[in-house]
This record gives sequence, structure tokens and C-alpha cells, in this order.
Amino acid sequence: MAADGGGEPDHLAGERATAQFDVDGMKVAWAGSRHAVEVADRMARLVASDPVFRKDTRTMLSRKELFKDTLKKAAHAWKRIVELRLTEEEANLLRLYVDQPGYVDLHWGMFVPAIKGQGTEEQQKKWLPMAYKFQIIGCYAQTELGHGSNVQGLETTATFDPSTDEFVMHSPTLTSSKWWPGGLGKASTHAVVYARLITEGKDYGIHGFIVQLRSLDDHSPLPGVTLGDIGGKFGSGAYNSMDNGVLRFDHVRIPRDQMLMRLSQVTREGKYVHSDVPKQLLYGTMVYVRQTIVADASKALSRAVCIAVRYSAIRKQFGSQDGGPETQVLNYKTQQSRLFPLLASAYAYRFVGQWLKWLYTDVNQKLEAKDYSTLPEAHACTAGLKSVTTSATADAIEECRKLCGGHGYLNSSGLPELFAVYVPACTYEGDNVVLLLQVARFLMKTVSQVAAGKQPVGTIAYMGNIQHLMQCKSAVNTAEDWLNPAAIKEVFEARALRMAVNCAQNISKAPSQEEGFLRALT
Amino acid sequence: MAADGGGEPDHLAGERATAQFDVDGMKVAWAGSRHAVEVADRMARLVASDPVFRKDTRTMLSRKELFKDTLKKAAHAWKRIVELRLTEEEANLLRLYVDQPGYVDLHWGMFVPAIKGQGTEEQQKKWLPMAYKFQIIGCYAQTELGHGSNVQGLETTATFDPSTDEFVMHSPTLTSSKWWPGGLGKASTHAVVYARLITEGKDYGIHGFIVQLRSLDDHSPLPGVTLGDIGGKFGSGAYNSMDNGVLRFDHVRIPRDQMLMRLSQVTREGKYVHSDVPKQLLYGTMVYVRQTIVADASKALSRAVCIAVRYSAIRKQFGSQDGGPETQVLNYKTQQSRLFPLLASAYAYRFVGQWLKWLYTDVNQKLEAKDYSTLPEAHACTAGLKSVTTSATADAIEECRKLCGGHGYLNSSGLPELFAVYVPACTYEGDNVVLLLQVARFLMKTVSQVAAGKQPVGTIAYMGNIQHLMQCKSAVNTAEDWLNPAAIKEVFEARALRMAVNCAQNISKAPSQEEGFLRALT
Repeated sequence: MAADGGGEPDHLAGERATAQFDVDGMKVAWAGSRHAVEVADRMARLVASDPVFRKDTRTMLSRKELFKDTLKKAAHAWKRIVELRLTEEEANLLRLYVDQPGYVDLHWGMFVPAIKGQGTEEQQKKWLPMAYKFQIIGCYAQTELGHGSNVQGLETTATFDPSTDEFVMHSPTLTSSKWWPGGLGKASTHAVVYARLITEGKDYGIHGFIVQLRSLDDHSPLPGVTLGDIGGKFGSGAYNSMDNGVLRFDHVRIPRDQMLMRLSQVTREGKYVHSDVPKQLLYGTMVYVRQTIVADASKALSRAVCIAVRYSAIRKQFGSQDGGPETQVLNYKTQQSRLFPLLASAYAYRFVGQWLKWLYTDVNQKLEAKDYSTLPEAHACTAGLKSVTTSATADAIEECRKLCGGHGYLNSSGLPELFAVYVPACTYEGDNVVLLLQVARFLMKTVSQVAAGKQPVGTIAYMGNIQHLMQCKSAVNTAEDWLNPAAIKEVFEARALRMAVNCAQNISKAPSQEEGFLRALT
Repeated sequence: MAADGGGEPDHLAGERATAQFDVDGMKVAWAGSRHAVEVADRMARLVASDPVFRKDTRTMLSRKELFKDTLKKAAHAWKRIVELRLTEEEANLLRLYVDQPGYVDLHWGMFVPAIKGQGTEEQQKKWLPMAYKFQIIGCYAQTELGHGSNVQGLETTATFDPSTDEFVMHSPTLTSSKWWPGGLGKASTHAVVYARLITEGKDYGIHGFIVQLRSLDDHSPLPGVTLGDIGGKFGSGAYNSMDNGVLRFDHVRIPRDQMLMRLSQVTREGKYVHSDVPKQLLYGTMVYVRQTIVADASKALSRAVCIAVRYSAIRKQFGSQDGGPETQVLNYKTQQSRLFPLLASAYAYRFVGQWLKWLYTDVNQKLEAKDYSTLPEAHACTAGLKSVTTSATADAIEECRKLCGGHGYLNSSGLPELFAVYVPACTYEGDNVVLLLQVARFLMKTVSQVAAGKQPVGTIAYMGNIQHLMQCKSAVNTAEDWLNPAAIKEVFEARALRMAVNCAQNISKAPSQEEGFLRALT
């Protein structure tokens, strides 16, 4: 096909020339530092120039070919990381640009951190070196067919048998099958399995256990272990590169010391005991993971918006006068009013993600000093931001797809896959609706604490200003007054607080707090 | 895997037993008649019991296997329709339940109707029998790489050459390539091609031409014709069963009598002349197609809601008291407030679809009687309903997917494919945003006509009641007052009219009508 549409002006260059801000400065602001720009740029080039990492055929591969491609890329990435002696920062960026979900994400992102966070020093010494050298491949087996959000409802059992000093891992019902863990279906040799700890006839609730699933000789499932891939998922490529799996145990025995024992232990005799490590230390990890998810939202959204903005600059439709060129769709108000808020959101999520990184550091420092006072607020704040940014980003990617008209429906636009691969973020690491309900409960609790004279901290410190906010009137009189950030902030604070107080009052009318909450919110 | 979750109550039966309406009566109301229920049921069973029509492997096939599967199903459906001497109603339902987009949709839905609507009697006699017997396979080549919504901007040319009594079909630019037509990529032998008619040096705008694309002997592209498939699309299966294609002409010659000549002709000498057939007759087809799309919205939405409602009845999470069973998620208000309005919408779209069927009959009867007075209103009404119902349905399917939690992300839930296969309805047959702008223009025109004393008809007849509606106050005082449909209707009418009048006033402040419209709406 001859590219004979010649004579077209370069619309992207034209649009870029009209930028009224310091583009280079914005790059640095986006990346966080000049150094971050440089490293990201270098890693992006490393991936883009390597034929093993090519992405253009990804949506055309069969499921099996796609999975093999993931294995190949993961091994090659590992090889390059070792060969080039990449730093952890560089290695993470390299994996980000490879941009294909795979078992290594769970190995590095969940298996290793779980052992680090919940394992004793002895356990860390035993398991981490093997994991670091990929002598074992791990995944994170928590979610079951019947239970996701309600972790306390998990049904898999780990029953201590003092006669052999072992735990017996078992899947007592169909719904107790582990279902969804990435890396479980095909790749993992080991898993951190969450199960009900039962010893001396008593159920102590959910605990983590390191369980070997497959032979290190021939990768076949060990006796009593049933494994499989749970099948195709949304999109042509997307998460189909991941071997989300199913796992069932039929009385599988593991040594007692494979229970993750940093916070609690089972003794040789079968006694359940708590260590003196405070439970709150685990929350730091949760804040960390959710901060990553918020940062990822800005990355996914910026990609989608970039495609839609470029398309809008090049695509012309209608508006031709006297046979002249048509109007770039970027210049239509209908396009602008849908597209520009998404562009602004990408920056907003980027900056709030950077702030969350600071929050994580702050929380961690306080935890080290055994100061748990800001934890509930930090937890609610990250839960709310995770929910809001991921829902808005998923919707925004789909909106960007629609803003590219019919062309957005083609895989070659990149947008269908971007949506399909992003949208699980609304569900994993806390379902967005469930997380918002947690935030609501936290706000209701705060209202009653404020009423009792307690001063709230962090992002809800404004609620302490209740006297003023419940009765203030906005000083805004003209449109220009809205350009004063303090005016906008006060209005948001007053509105948020009044809604929270109103909701709390409705709840207080119910026979019980819980009943009122159910009526109002669930 | 043992199905050892026994002892579970049958939640669906339990929920069904609580229905407080006549389920059988509702079935009839949904289908339109007792007869329609019976035929639909019979055709559904015919498809479900035939192994050739199996759907369970659809998302696991490679693109090539999927396309072959479509060819096999289309041929088998045709064979069954002939063998069983199915009526047109039955055949349409059979194809609906086969439920896999394919070239036959365009053959029956666009190619044949285009010849029927725009071909002369002679042309119909020549081409339709071949099409009915599948001796030729046709598609509808309108959209180009550079132009979709703006049909008047299409660039393909059909230049009359009086020396040979032929049209020369040509693609002068890259953007003039036909792009998207279903059935074009692999299957079609012929197409109705829309191109700029040029004769005696003058451009007469877009007209339809029947053009042979492939040899009837070996199916290879004819000289001067370049053909291809435009690649993968959203979803694992979805529209990937369709060979959406690209087509370019390099001075391809067709006989003059392959221009569709019902409305206008080019004479042997090259004169362009209009026939006495009124142009408005074509609008009947547009109303028909959009009525079908609204009806299809209710079908797609009802499938998605059905899956989400059943899932919500079976899925339990949280709310266990004293070790008892957990709460069905169907009983959570957060689930209900998201799910039930979608269920209600499915019925609303079904009933408005039935009303649109009546409107089509009414419009057609008026057209036969050369009464074109209700056409603009019928056109605006179908454009608006097409836009509103398809956008809401696409969003609703995705919401149903999210309402099934993580499980909705698996292809086995049916929902990812339902979304991916449905969402093009927002773009084809009139982009939803463009259609809404047309409705807005129509409403602005109506406001000025009402001001000039003209009585509006059909769905906007209420705008004639402008004196009352601009100043009335709602008689609603208590919550119960809202149970009176007349009260709701009046509020909607007053609100819609006041918004329209307000918008018209803003537009009238601009230097010109067009400038004001651009400022307000585009």
C-alpha cells in the first residue's frame, strides 16, 4: 500500500511547538528527579532496542505461545539484569518497560516480601537466598474460589500433627480451592499459602505457610497437590500472559518450621504463642503496596491519555470550509471536555503517588519508634486513594479508547489491551467497593472521636475545625475568587465534613451502630 | 476435583420462589407475544443442542481457528435454515443465538438491504437472486481510514469514463483506503462501495456502487484491488471472528450499470440526473437499523444482568454471625444499588425498542403516503435512543462484570466477551457523541420553531406546552406524590424544555447561529 497521503503537515510537531510551559522541567517533575528521568530513559531504550522484548505480536499469539513468550522474556530480563549489574531501581524499571504480567511479578512482589515481612530471621536465611537466585519460584496463594475480600473466611486448613511435627495442609471444600494466584498455574515451585491454623483442636485463624508445590527435579506437582491454570481472561493478550492458577491440597504434610513465625509460633508441643513483634508492623507493607498501585495508576493513565491526545491532534473530521482542511478533533470542545480532565488526572495521580511515597516513609519511621498513632489515618488514606485512582483510571482508559473513535477498538491502538490489563487493579489488593466502605467506617469513627474532643491527624486534621466548617459560608463571590486555592479547599472541607456528620447522625438513629451502618452504607 | 461443597442450598431456586409477579406473563411481555416466546425458545434449543454451534471454546481459539469456526458456523446455519425451511423470523433468531459476528451479518444486514433500498428494479432482479443463493457474498464498504462519521468527507472516487461506459474506482490517498467493513478482509466477493461520483469533471458527492472484489473461480482479489484484514480487536473472541478489512482500488473499472441508480443516475452520455424517487425514502432504513440496535441493547444488557444477578445470589461474603452462613452479596445495599437499576434498564430498553418498532411502521406508512412531516422527529428520536441505550448498555455490562468481583474478569464468566463484542455499538451506525450533537441541533431548531408558533409532533409534542412548562411548579409535596407518573412526566418535561430554551438563548447571543452552536456544544 503506497503511503501516498503526502503533503500532510506534522500535526504533532505543530501542537508541541505551542507548549506554554517548560517541557523539560515537567519531565523532571513527573519522574521525581533529573536522575529518575535519566534512568527511566536508559531502561526504556534498553527494552525497546532488544528484539526479545518486542511487543508488537503480543495480541496475536495463542495463549500457549503467549505464556512461552512470558517465560522467555522473564529469563532474558533476569539475564540482562545480572549481565549489566543493574541496580534494584534499574531492574524494577526494566521490568516495568517489559510490561508483560508474569510469574516473576509475584515472586518479587509478593513471595519474597511475605517471607521478609512474616518470616523469622532463620526462615529468611533459609529461603531468601534460594529465591534471590531463582532456585525456587514462589507465588502468593491467598484468594480462594469462595473467598476474596473476606480473608477471615478462607477455608484451607493447616492442622498441626504433634506426632510428626508437621502441618497437614488440606482443602476441605470445593470453595476452599486456591483460585487466582498469579504464577501458580504453571511456573511456581513454592507458595506462601494462607490457611486456618488448627492446633490442639482449636482454630487460630489465618496464617501463612511456605509450601512446596512442584518437584525441583521435573516440575511435576508433588503428591496430594492438584494444580491448574484457571483459563482465559479479559483481552487478547493482557493478563493472559499470567498463569493465574488453582490449587488443592489433599492432606499435604509440611515441616512445622514452614509456618511463617515472625508474629506467632506453634511450639514443638503444639502450643500457639505470640511473639513480641507488634502486629502493626505488617501494615507498613500494605501502605507500601497501595502506594505502588497509585503510582501505577498514573503510569497507565498517562499512556492512555498520550495515545488519545496524539490521535486527536492527527485525526481530522468535519469543519472543512470551502474545501480546506477539516478540523483536528483535538479542537472540538466535546473532545476537549472529555480528554483534558483525564490528562490533568494523570498528573494529579502522579503527584499524589509521590506524596504517598513520603507517607510510607513517615509511617515506617513511626512504626520503628513504636508510634502507632497515625496508622489508622494512613491506612484509610491509602485505601481510599487506591480505590479512587484505580476506578477512575480504568474508566479513563476506556474513555480514551472511545475518544479514538473506531480506531480505538483495534488492538493496534494499544488501548484495548491497556484497559484489559489495567482493570484488575480495581479488584486486587482490596476490592474498591470494600475499601471505600472501610474508609466510610473510619470517617464515622473519626466523627464520633471529634465529638469526644479528640484531635484528628494527617489528611483528616481539617475535621478538627468542626465548629467553623459546620457553619461557615464560602467567601466566593466572583468566578475569579475560585482561583484562590484556599477557597476551594475550604469548600471541599466543609462539604466533606458536613456529609460525614450527616451520615453519622443517620447512623446514630438506628438501634445499634452496626445496624445503622448497614442501613446507611451496605 | 471433587465437588465436595455439598449441602449447599440452591440459592437460585430460593430467590426464584420469592418472585411477586407473574413470571410467565413477564416472559410474554418481554418477547412481545406468546408466539415470540415459543419461537425464541425453539430456536435457542436448536442452537444449544447442535455441537457445530458450541461456544465454550470460542475464547481459546487462535484468530485463524476462530475465523474458520465462523465460516463453519455460518455455512451450517445456512444449511439448517434451508433443511428445516425456517421462516425469516426463525432464521433471524437462529443467527441471533449462534451469536458470533461474521461476514453473513453484513451480507444480510447491509449488502442486500442497500441493493433493495438504493438499486433499481432491474438491478434488484440481477443481483438479489445471486445474493439470496450465496452465489456472491457482499459487504458494505463505506468507512475509510480517514473518514467515519463525516460521510461527505469520503475520498474514494468513481469517475465516469464515457469512452468505455464505465466508472473508474480509485483510492487517491492513503486515508481513502476503505477500513473496517466487516466481511471485506477475507469473505466477500462483492461490495457496495461508497465513493465520490465524478462525471463531466464535476464531483456529485457520495454514491453507492456494486463492485466485484474477488474472483468467483478462486477467490483471489481482482486486478487493481488490494485487500486485507485490519488485525486483532478488543477481546479474546468477540469481533475477532469478523474479517473487518481494508480495501484499495487502483483504477478499477466497473460497468456504468453497477452504480445504484434508484435515486440518481448517470446517463450513457455522462449526464447526472435525479430520478423522481424521493430521497426521504432512505431514512426509513436508518430508522429500521437503529430500532434494531436499541432492541439489541436490551438483549445484551439482559444477558449481562442475568449473569450478575445469579452470581450475586450464589456468592456469599462477610456477615457470618456465630459461624453461620455468610450473607449473599445480593442482599448488600451496595450491590443492589448498582445492580437493580441495570436490571430495570434492560426492561426499559426492551419496551422502548418495541415502541421504536411501531415508530418504524408508522414512519414507513407516512413515507408511502409522501407525508414527510414526522421524519425529522423520528430521526432525532432514533438517533438519541441509539446513543443513550448503547452507551448505557456498554457501561452496564462492564459494571455487571465488576459486580462479579474477580470472577467477572475470567472469560468463563462470559462478561469480558459480552463487553468486548458489544461496545462497538457505541461507534457503528453513527458515533454516539455525533448523534447526540444531531439531537441537540434538532432540539435547538424545535425551540425556534415553537417560538414561531409551529406545533411540534411525536415525542417532542410536549414542547408545544411551553407557556405552562416554563413557569409551572411541581405539585409534589410528599414522597408518595412521586408515585403519580403524571407528576414525574411533568417534571421531566419542564426540566428538558427549560434546559433547551436556556441553551437556545445562549446560542442566540453569538454572532451567528453556527458560531453559537459551536461555542455551546462542540
